[in-house]
Amino acid sequence: MYLAKVFVTLKPTVNDPQGITVLGGLKNMGYESVSEVRVGKLLEVKIEETDPHRAENIANEICDKLLANPVIEQYSVELLEQ
Amino acid sequence: MYLAKVFVTLKPTVNDPQGITVLGGLKNMGYESVSEVRVGKLLEVKIEETDPHRAENIANEICDKLLANPVIEQYSVELLEQ
Repeated sequence: MYLAKVFVTLKPTVNDPQGITVLGGLKNMGYESVSEVRVGKLLEVKIEETDPHRAENIANEICDKLLANPVIEQYSVELLEQ
Repeated sequence: MYLAKVFVTLKPTVNDPQGITVLGGLKNMGYESVSEVRVGKLLEVKIEETDPHRAENIANEICDKLLANPVIEQYSVELLEQ
């Protein structure tokens, strides 16, 4: 069994209003040294496969098809055997 | 300057309706080997400090105070020098 940790982030050129809001909150709380916040998603996906290549293919496929929006988001996958 | 990668996930005992919905979608798409999905947040926070201990303290403090809800969420921080 594999655990795929999928990190989905907005592409660097895409505006991130959620991150800007969090940054504003931190500045208001007095954290002046925080200069930027970007918010992304972390998905932990359990894949019941014995072959790591197959598990990795499935992880990448579901990212392309469902978990990430390729127009504005990029993703990376970290595969852990369990 | 430091980049703090903050991973916020629901505690294991907390129900994750968003993850269950994604899992249902994947099952409908034919991914039978996917058995569980949990959805969390990934926050990339730039901290303008030169001292790594100070940067780490700030990262942990903002998690406790704003980025994570300690009742239902847990977090981990990965600090990268830039």
